[in-house]
This record gives sequence, structure tokens and C-alpha cells, in this order.
Amino acid sequence: MEKTELKDEKTKEVEVEEEQVVNPWEVSAKDGGKIDYDKLIDKFGCQRLDETLIQRVKRLTNREPHVFLRRGVFFAHRDFNDILDSYEKGEKFYLYTGRGPSSEALHLGHLIPFMFTKYLQDAFKVPLVIQLTDDEKCMWKNLSVEESQRLARENAKDIIACGFDVSKTFIFSDFDYVGGAFYKNMVKVAKCVTYNKVVGIFGFTGEDHIGKVSFPPIQAVPSFPSSFPHLFGNDNIRCLIPCAIDQDPYFRMTRDVAPRIGYHKPALIESSFFPALQGENGKMSASDPNSAIYVTDSAKEIKNKINRYAFSGGQDSIEKHRKYGANLEVDIPFKYLGFFLDDDKELDHIREEYGSGRMLTGEIKKRLVDVLTDLVERHRRAREAVTDEMVDAFMAVRPLPNMFN
Amino acid sequence: MEKTELKDEKTKEVEVEEEQVVNPWEVSAKDGGKIDYDKLIDKFGCQRLDETLIQRVKRLTNREPHVFLRRGVFFAHRDFNDILDSYEKGEKFYLYTGRGPSSEALHLGHLIPFMFTKYLQDAFKVPLVIQLTDDEKCMWKNLSVEESQRLARENAKDIIACGFDVSKTFIFSDFDYVGGAFYKNMVKVAKCVTYNKVVGIFGFTGEDHIGKVSFPPIQAVPSFPSSFPHLFGNDNIRCLIPCAIDQDPYFRMTRDVAPRIGYHKPALIESSFFPALQGENGKMSASDPNSAIYVTDSAKEIKNKINRYAFSGGQDSIEKHRKYGANLEVDIPFKYLGFFLDDDKELDHIREEYGSGRMLTGEIKKRLVDVLTDLVERHRRAREAVTDEMVDAFMAVRPLPNMFN
Repeated sequence: MEKTELKDEKTKEVEVEEEQVVNPWEVSAKDGGKIDYDKLIDKFGCQRLDETLIQRVKRLTNREPHVFLRRGVFFAHRDFNDILDSYEKGEKFYLYTGRGPSSEALHLGHLIPFMFTKYLQDAFKVPLVIQLTDDEKCMWKNLSVEESQRLARENAKDIIACGFDVSKTFIFSDFDYVGGAFYKNMVKVAKCVTYNKVVGIFGFTGEDHIGKVSFPPIQAVPSFPSSFPHLFGNDNIRCLIPCAIDQDPYFRMTRDVAPRIGYHKPALIESSFFPALQGENGKMSASDPNSAIYVTDSAKEIKNKINRYAFSGGQDSIEKHRKYGANLEVDIPFKYLGFFLDDDKELDHIREEYGSGRMLTGEIKKRLVDVLTDLVERHRRAREAVTDEMVDAFMAVRPLPNMFN
Repeated sequence: MEKTELKDEKTKEVEVEEEQVVNPWEVSAKDGGKIDYDKLIDKFGCQRLDETLIQRVKRLTNREPHVFLRRGVFFAHRDFNDILDSYEKGEKFYLYTGRGPSSEALHLGHLIPFMFTKYLQDAFKVPLVIQLTDDEKCMWKNLSVEESQRLARENAKDIIACGFDVSKTFIFSDFDYVGGAFYKNMVKVAKCVTYNKVVGIFGFTGEDHIGKVSFPPIQAVPSFPSSFPHLFGNDNIRCLIPCAIDQDPYFRMTRDVAPRIGYHKPALIESSFFPALQGENGKMSASDPNSAIYVTDSAKEIKNKINRYAFSGGQDSIEKHRKYGANLEVDIPFKYLGFFLDDDKELDHIREEYGSGRMLTGEIKKRLVDVLTDLVERHRRAREAVTDEMVDAFMAVRPLPNMFN
């Protein structure tokens, strides 16, 4: 999985000039502008996650919906209502998410699916499988097998630091776990998908290596409970996948195949992309560390990056700012606060004050520096506490007897 | 692997009209005639296994070369001389062969690679890995996973009945064994092979499912010792593959990739095809049980099939036969004796007597019935003695401490 990862690798998809491209390896907007999420929902055929659904989540889980739900970060879904229907009837489901371990240092965008998945696990009290696609990264990024596996383990520490419950969570690396029941499901999926089909979905060309062509079933099969016999035995329960919307192609394919091989279609809950510091039409790039806040950044680096690089919607001069107010549509500090400031009232206050020009860019940047420094510092401490033994514990192939409690 | 199996499935390869087609899924001669093996050697770029090499095998192993070597059944090779060089220097190598378990009942053609591999194992005192490609058959023949695995185990019993040494032999099913070190090698191979390349080698089309495109690395990686860490640890020893020549495309691909990922190219020793009862331009077909002798046939069935269906090179009348002699080029009973009658002197005698017309078709058929009845009866008894525990023992993932003794 790539999730909201840095998109520094061009896919060879036949691109329609000037159209936005969103697939697991490239996210680029039309004419360098912003991604049009409405168009994306139309094109992919998923559904908007509306207020009714959010209120239903609140009622069913008996707790405040996560800030990423309230603020529309997770904005689209497939069959999430069916998951809630079955949950309401007391039926079980499990969560599946993942990460492609291509870099050691995670940025804030990488944390988003995991922070949200942790909330879902807590709110619904459900088991979770997390796939580390070290095989994918070995093939796409030309990393060695050993380096991909090392990165998978390092990334597992950051994931564990998000606070997952070891009694409900199984983390696995493909290089370790592919085989057995998982491999059998891979073959079942592969039989149902033609080469032309994957070309249509992923834009592979004849010069792409066959590892790429072989990969989609590997990301598909964690959607099926029988891929984890140590967890689910023969229980054909439903799966809910929280992910960034660029992963939708994998799961469109999976949903197409699922009923043909006797499984439920996995449900999805999909997020928008986390913007680069330089703005939503900018790009977080691994070659430019100033385009993103990393979970390894120091307080000083965070302060410096936000003050120097975070694109501001504030006006050129204080006079104009007081008169016209900030353009919140493009203001990165305000957008970042939308992701990470939990207090709705405070965010409303900032929207009002900053949007009207009474609050200045410096003030909102200072508030963001505080929020992110706190977040990163908490992550750093949590990650330091993750031992190799804990990684082994999360990654052990084992039953999880209390995973629904 | 398909080996000399019934070729009842059309490949979608772009066939040049009137040319012979030999690939793992189809063997068909030009204009319905005989396979031109010289042309095949030229086209594939392998080498003829000549008398010098056979004499060298005799000298090195200190025993009579196997009848399949003496009679040219195994007629082509790649780097077999290099294997002998290193063997002479006291260096280790291992054998790899396999079978695609698509049917319960094996015919005589299926036994050929295993009979020959048993000889190689005994003569060179080397370990052997046998791959049962149940995943391949599940994908190509549209068998269920469970049925493919059941057939793999049933076929393993026939293979074990050929007399392999359990202290030197590891039999594995892909559905069981794919994963870990084996899967890592699969990814390494897949990274080196483009889709265009496999289209060129195997003739896949866009309407083929991606399981087919994904499969070649699975048949490739048993050629690399690191795919079996329980056997070879980090020992980068050479591999020799006895197989029918229709499998050559897989190993051409493998040999192309091997040096790029740090392994020796596997050496090959390749057999011609075992002819159908109806003649070399006939076809053994699963839908026509009278086209082949099965290891499950009774003595009566063998006698009946040979007398009724084995294509004879004898003349229409006794008078003409006495005058012109039999046409040994097309005579199936004589060809079958060439595979299974070990006694060179007796075969020479039959060639002389039958070719000159002094011996009649009925006599040679009777001799063949005796030879095959004996072979099949011995196989039947050996297979009956194979218990489930023996299958488990051969298929256990375990070290083989005495595999070179």
C-alpha cells in the first residue's frame, strides 16, 4: 500500500492530457490545480460520506466521531452503511489497512490512516490486520529484499506507536506472510482478473515487469478473512478498509472478484490527500524535506518549516489582511489545523477570526506549531517505547482470542 | 510443470501457420507430422546430448548410462557439461524436477522424467527437489484449490513409487510451500522479467488471467538453492533440471535472470516426447484413454490396448512383411520397447529380426505387453506400499543431513 505517501514515481498510465490522475502511484491534479474530489467520486463510483452516516456512527459507537470524520478528511466510502447495518445486528467485521514501507521517516500524511484506524478499532472494538507491502516496495522502488524488510520493521514501530491494541491487531510483512491460505486466495483472485483488466485499472505497460502485474492480488486478499485462518478460521465475516482514495483501484478490483470466489465485497472508507506545506497544488516530495513535516522533526525544525514554507492565505500587508481577511481555501496552516486540532470550537473561532482578518498569519502558525510539536513529541515518545519484542508480538502469527471484546 | 503430459489445452500463442509449436501447454508438429527435434534444438538454442557426453557420464558415475541416455530419450541439454566439470572437481549440485498435478491417473509418459531422475539421484548421489505445481493446474485447468492439492498428493504417491530416497528428496506442493525464502526469490525473478518478455516466451494474450503471467517465476525459483534454506542454507550450489523439452521456455527465462540476481544458471537435460499409441503424429489425449497406457491399467487392458491400438510399422500381409520388413520409424511397439526394454542386445535383435521381416508384429507386441505389464505391475505394487505417512515424510520441510552421501 502506498496510502498518502510521497508520489515521486511516475506511473506509465496512458494519461488523458490535462485530466487529474489518481492511482496508487501517482496523484496529480488537472493543470497543477487542486484535486477535484467530487469528480473522483463520480469517476471511481464510490459514495460521499455524508452527515447522516457520520451521525449514525456517533449513535452506534456512543462517542464523538473522529475529527477526520467531522472535518471530511475521510470523505468517501463503499458499503460503509452495510458495515454499520451488520454491526447494528451484532455481526462481526474486521479492519484492514496497510503501508508500503519505502522510507524510514514517516510524515504526518502517513499517520492519518493509522490515527483513524486506531479510532475505528477503539470505537467498534474490532480486530485489525495491517499489511506491510515490502514486496511491492522492493519491486517498485528497486529496493533489495533485505532493505524492504528492514523498512517494514521500522515502519511497524511507527504504526505501533499510534496506539494499536496488541490483543486485537496483527501486523504482517508480505515477505514473511505470503504463503498458505493467503497464497491460495491470491491464486483464486488472480484467476478472475485478466491482464487487460489490470492494464485498464492500473495502467501497466508491456515494459513493466511481471512483478507489478502479479501484485494486485496480494493487496486484494487481506480483504478476505480466510487469508488469516489463525484469526478468523472459517468465519466469512465482513472487512472494512480505511485508506486514502488513491488505493481505491485495488479494491474496485477486489470487490469485482469477491462474490465470484465466495467472499463479501470489502467495504471502504476513504480519505482525501494530506497537502504539502507549499499548498494543495504543491507536492510532498521525498527529495524536498521542506515539503512535509516528518515524525522525526525536532520542535525547531517544525517551527522553522511552518514559518518559512507553509503556504499562507493571509494578505500581503497587515492593512490588506485586516480589510480582506485570510483566504482559508488555500491557507495551509488552517488546513493542517483542520486535520490535527481536535477542538471544534477553537477551530471555528480561528476560522472566524482569521478569515475576517482579525487574527494574523503569525498567530495561526504559532498555534499550528504548538499542535504539531505536541503531536510529533507524543509520537516520538510512543515510538521510543516500542521495543523489538513488541514488534515481534504484533507480527506473531497467533490467534487473538479477545479481538472482539 | 507439465512435462510429457497430455496436451489437451490450446495455448493462445500466435502460431505461425504450419510451424511446429512446442511450449509448456502445447506440443504440435508441422502439418500433423513428427516433431523435428533438430529444429527444436536450433530454435531453443540448447545443445545435443552427444555420445561423448554419455560416455563421460558412464566414466564419472562408474555405471552403465540409463537406457533413456543410451537410446536418446534425453537428447538435449544446457550446460550439462559444466555440471559434470564441477562434479568431477568434487563440487556439489542438486536436481530439480516437477509435475503439474492435473489428473489422477498417470500414463507411462509421465513416469519418464521421474525414472530418469531416480537414476541421476542414484548415480550422482545428490539431493533432489520435486515441485508439484498445484497452483498452476488450479489456474490453467480451472480446478479448485482443494482438488489441485488432492491431485498433488495422489501424484506424489506415484512419484515416490518410482523409488526415490527419502533421505535425499524433498517433494513440495506450491500451495503449501510458496512463501518465505521461496517467495523472496519469486519477487527477485519477477523484477527482472517484463510482460513483453513473457509474451514473447509463452505467448500469453491480454485476455489471459494474471495468474498465468505471475506463474513463470514460481517454476523458475526451485532452480536457486536459496529457495530451500532448510536444505542448502547459503550454499550457492548448481542445479540440474531433468525435464521434457517443452519446459525449456521456463528455464530459458530462468537462465536469463539467474546471473542478474546472483545465482548460477540452472543446467538442463531434456527429453523428447513419449508417443501416443496411435503413433508419433497422434496425440495422447485425456479424453481418449486408448491413446495411452496408464499406470493403473490392468494386464488385460494393457494387452488389449497394445494389440488393438498400438500403431504398427508391419506390412499389410505376412507375405509383404516377410519381403519388406517392418517400418521401425513409425512402429509404436518398437519405439515403446526402445524406452522400456533395458536389454540392448535384445533390442538389437528385435530391430534386426523385425526390421527384416523375420519377426512378426504379433511377436513384438507380445514382448511389449510383457515388458509393460511387468513395469506397471511393479509400479502398482510400489504405489500400494506408499502410505500417507511416507508422503508426509517426503513433503516435510526438513534438513536432509545425508543428502550427498
